[in-house]
Amino acid sequence: MLCRRVLTLPIQLSRLYSLQASCQQRARSAPYPKRTHNCGSLTARDAGSRVVLAGWILPERKGKAISFFPIKDSHGTTQLIVNHADNPASSSIISEIPVESTVLIEGTVLLRPSNARRSDPTGEIDVQVDKVTLLNPATNLPFLPSNPHNLPNEDLRSRHRYLDLRRTALSENIKKRSQVAHLVRNILHTIGFTEVETPVLLRSSPEGAREFLVPTRINTASPTSQEPLFYALQQSPQQPKQLLICSGGVDKYFQIAKCFRDEDGRKDRQPEFTQIDLEMAFVSWSGDEKGTSWKIGGGEVRDVIETLLREIWQQFENVALPPRLRVMTYHDAMTHFGSDKPDTRFGLEITDLTDLLPANRALSRENEVIECIVVREPEFIKASHSFKHDYDVEHITLTEENLQTWLLGSDSARQILSQEDQSIVNDALKIKSGDDVWLTRRSRLPKGGSTVLGKVRLGLAELAQSQGEFTPTKDPHFLWITEFPLFTRDDSDKDFLAKGRWSSSHHPFTAPMWEDIPTLYRGDIETVRGQHYDLVLNGVEIGGGSVRIHDPLMQDHIFTNVLQLSENEKTPFNHLVRALHCGAPPHGGIALGFDRIMTMLCNTQSIRDVIAFPKTSLGTDLLFKSPAPVTSQVLYEYGIQPRSAT
Amino acid sequence: MLCRRVLTLPIQLSRLYSLQASCQQRARSAPYPKRTHNCGSLTARDAGSRVVLAGWILPERKGKAISFFPIKDSHGTTQLIVNHADNPASSSIISEIPVESTVLIEGTVLLRPSNARRSDPTGEIDVQVDKVTLLNPATNLPFLPSNPHNLPNEDLRSRHRYLDLRRTALSENIKKRSQVAHLVRNILHTIGFTEVETPVLLRSSPEGAREFLVPTRINTASPTSQEPLFYALQQSPQQPKQLLICSGGVDKYFQIAKCFRDEDGRKDRQPEFTQIDLEMAFVSWSGDEKGTSWKIGGGEVRDVIETLLREIWQQFENVALPPRLRVMTYHDAMTHFGSDKPDTRFGLEITDLTDLLPANRALSRENEVIECIVVREPEFIKASHSFKHDYDVEHITLTEENLQTWLLGSDSARQILSQEDQSIVNDALKIKSGDDVWLTRRSRLPKGGSTVLGKVRLGLAELAQSQGEFTPTKDPHFLWITEFPLFTRDDSDKDFLAKGRWSSSHHPFTAPMWEDIPTLYRGDIETVRGQHYDLVLNGVEIGGGSVRIHDPLMQDHIFTNVLQLSENEKTPFNHLVRALHCGAPPHGGIALGFDRIMTMLCNTQSIRDVIAFPKTSLGTDLLFKSPAPVTSQVLYEYGIQPRSAT
Repeated sequence: MLCRRVLTLPIQLSRLYSLQASCQQRARSAPYPKRTHNCGSLTARDAGSRVVLAGWILPERKGKAISFFPIKDSHGTTQLIVNHADNPASSSIISEIPVESTVLIEGTVLLRPSNARRSDPTGEIDVQVDKVTLLNPATNLPFLPSNPHNLPNEDLRSRHRYLDLRRTALSENIKKRSQVAHLVRNILHTIGFTEVETPVLLRSSPEGAREFLVPTRINTASPTSQEPLFYALQQSPQQPKQLLICSGGVDKYFQIAKCFRDEDGRKDRQPEFTQIDLEMAFVSWSGDEKGTSWKIGGGEVRDVIETLLREIWQQFENVALPPRLRVMTYHDAMTHFGSDKPDTRFGLEITDLTDLLPANRALSRENEVIECIVVREPEFIKASHSFKHDYDVEHITLTEENLQTWLLGSDSARQILSQEDQSIVNDALKIKSGDDVWLTRRSRLPKGGSTVLGKVRLGLAELAQSQGEFTPTKDPHFLWITEFPLFTRDDSDKDFLAKGRWSSSHHPFTAPMWEDIPTLYRGDIETVRGQHYDLVLNGVEIGGGSVRIHDPLMQDHIFTNVLQLSENEKTPFNHLVRALHCGAPPHGGIALGFDRIMTMLCNTQSIRDVIAFPKTSLGTDLLFKSPAPVTSQVLYEYGIQPRSAT
Repeated sequence: MLCRRVLTLPIQLSRLYSLQASCQQRARSAPYPKRTHNCGSLTARDAGSRVVLAGWILPERKGKAISFFPIKDSHGTTQLIVNHADNPASSSIISEIPVESTVLIEGTVLLRPSNARRSDPTGEIDVQVDKVTLLNPATNLPFLPSNPHNLPNEDLRSRHRYLDLRRTALSENIKKRSQVAHLVRNILHTIGFTEVETPVLLRSSPEGAREFLVPTRINTASPTSQEPLFYALQQSPQQPKQLLICSGGVDKYFQIAKCFRDEDGRKDRQPEFTQIDLEMAFVSWSGDEKGTSWKIGGGEVRDVIETLLREIWQQFENVALPPRLRVMTYHDAMTHFGSDKPDTRFGLEITDLTDLLPANRALSRENEVIECIVVREPEFIKASHSFKHDYDVEHITLTEENLQTWLLGSDSARQILSQEDQSIVNDALKIKSGDDVWLTRRSRLPKGGSTVLGKVRLGLAELAQSQGEFTPTKDPHFLWITEFPLFTRDDSDKDFLAKGRWSSSHHPFTAPMWEDIPTLYRGDIETVRGQHYDLVLNGVEIGGGSVRIHDPLMQDHIFTNVLQLSENEKTPFNHLVRALHCGAPPHGGIALGFDRIMTMLCNTQSIRDVIAFPKTSLGTDLLFKSPAPVTSQVLYEYGIQPRSAT
């Protein structure tokens, strides 16, 4: 009776299978009734209804007269009741079904006795089971995803990601990601943006070492040439989106875009990642706005992003962001926080001592500053005492004895400052015995993304947090950073291309601040600031963008005279310069790191928790077993072969 | 005066530029006022307002006292008025600005005299210009995108796609694409779908010759091995989406997904294309529905797709689709239309003469059918008389003389049929002198996608259309095709892998019709029908999907016993079979070709007209100049080199 209902096929066919399970444990491939509800939808209002549910069966809670079985799907869990006496058939079937099998249940919704009602969505009812149909048995599970307390290691879960995704925590992240993306699209469509798909298969450019290549079966034009040709996977839609806006065909572009970078050695690295990418025509200057500290163009982009963030944080975090997010210049960020992406959730601010002294009178070298962090009791003081590091920084614990000499006697200030300076500093800092001081001297123009004191500051906070001395606020600390230097010589990531020349701090299409245009043409490259803006959340860079150059002559000046690119190096940019010549509008845009934003919204540490099928930090995929070798026959078609042993 | 207002920089800076344009023709990089309206938004209600517009300036229509200039952006066009006497400065500036330059206009909205009002959006007003600011001059345009009557060839336009996209026709397509995609997302979100991004970088599988490979810098585990490893770009998210649904973490998945195939020799080929991809858990059998001709599972998928299409066609074409789209079996499609994607916008149906004869008494060979198309006056008859072809088909023009003998005397039926059969056929077909008959004999089980008569049918219609003898209806003819054979030996695309073995008509995860499961296990492979469904629009396949196998033993049976895959060939499917063992739910899905659908909705012939930055049919990108060579140094890092000359 039991077998006949569950089995699809006439009994004699079972001999054809290599059947390890017992007869009731075959998957059902014959028709079955449609489900009427999902497992998260039944409430007291459904009491008395006949329902059909489908889902995954969880461990039995067995009683004398009745057993309880939770049945779960991605919408929720419903408690099933099987009455042993009334329905012995169902009772024995369901007890034999392995946990995590898919089943179909027909039954009746019962209102729970009032003392058994719970506040969770289906907590008011049970479903009394009349009939059980096994749809597919679970066999030899490597782990039980319904048990959150005994998770195996990440490696095992990655190899069986299809089972790990059954965990509620992970599937909720994936669903939230979908909801946030849709909210972003809804807002952007509402305010007139057009989503445009740009090519993933693009041209490889001189930065090739950081992009993925895609061999093609296309040969160079010359029929005798065997030179293989390659696409490159887009690192970002930067050039296509600028060309699109240059066309005038679209006024406001966006795309939730898959991007690809072949970088290694990054924590939480993913070779493919997702950007919320946008670009707008006719962005204008925003410095006129009353009281604004945003002294560059692109205010239209800022407005859109702040609207997006405000809606997302309202809907998903129930947090009301302020009407305007804070803006800080790169100079201020480096001076006060020692970082171009400051975490402003805590103090430990840096003080430039040079600034405190009248007319810098005592500083022998003008191009340097002396700066310090003062750690005062009680917060961070334990961390400050126990912080281990190998930074080039002085650590001075103040006592009654050294209170009037700590600065004068330091390596950073010795023979530079006077006793009067020491007093001025002590007064300004309101310093006292028991305080802890971290002291450095550095060049006045900060370089790159952080200073030594910036690293000390983060190190202290991290240590204090791990020791329970400090708990960061839950309020999100958003921050725009503006007025970055337009060019740099200190980015090691870029130097392999720049080879000692200037390189662009962000990319060569970023416009200078208009006040600095004369400086640019005068050749005073180091001090030119760009119309770039980075968006920082809790010390993590979650996006960046800029007003672009729309003047083809200026763009060419930067390529030729500042970056000193050869004609060959300029080739991949030629079409962009030509597009600027065709009446390109002033324009600007931004890209937000969607994976990072979701990591924050899902309150998780790892980017892999917000991606359905992530890769390891090495770039391997333990589920699909990629990358993998291919036959030399296939490579031959693409005009390549494994490189010869050297 | 003029120069000072327009130029950003002090005059002396201009010497630094390689300045070809005159001083008023420099791009402006200094601040300018924010625009107040776009160029498509002003109406009579704005009369009297001061406005700021930005856009592209189009050719002047010069009058004695005033000149008219259209200013255009992606939203529309507004007519500007410049009064020569009142505002000589603006008048002379604007007249000197090259067409297609970007300008900023400050002025006042004037209601047009009633006889000059037009019904287009801004047709009630003009803007009288007070002040003109040149934002960026257009220089040396390769063509004028505002002139739709004198378009240069596609090659030139492709190389300057950023200018071609300024054409209204093209930019409207791109915007419509965005709107349709958003409508699709809105509907799917509303009915409970979750959009999930699946990996683009997947594992290369035995079908590698058709996928793009991506070399990596990852080596095989063994430190001594130098074997290069590759990702493969996803051909479709088929395996990830099935694994996702198997997880139970998501009940209804969708993705508007970029897919990649390295196919050649296809018309309108694009190496990257976009699918509306979806998959649903717990799809059930639909054969119970009253009067349905859909005799397979996956009715839930059908419902979703019909809802999508109904909404799209309602909103974008103002066409009300019927409550149910037509369903036809593969057998009926091949029998009546000679095609598995019939164009049902016209008749010319095929008749199986064998069916007309009692008990096939005269057919010597049971496994064959004799079939014909009768072309009757007036439609298609001219085309039928003049159709040139090299198909193996008989073409008989009926006259009073051959009316009683045309079949008997044919190569297809000679010595098979009797005079009585001839009369039965003539009566059944209501045939008469002047009709044209196309006649063939073929094997009873149709193979592949079309028959000879199916090709003749399409050829006749195409010829008749080009000669003006036939105009297809504008009503969209949607059609589901079901009950395909599950396996084939006649797909040349697949035979290079199958090597004479059976291959899956669609893919090896398609479930058999449940009535045919005993046949499958009995080994009568040829007659097993699958739970596959194709969606056809006006004779073009725009999508396809299926109910999948969720029984791991059945899946393994198909891999091992039907397709006879070696262990090595099964490797890329191992994780899927393992996922089925973990309590995978019954599931099914579909993928729609979004580019093709947009081609239809934009009423264009070429897929390139609905993609912002398309590639040529050869796979080259004339704008970005891809693919391109890369240095051997870069290749070295990826463990590959150009293949040696042979």
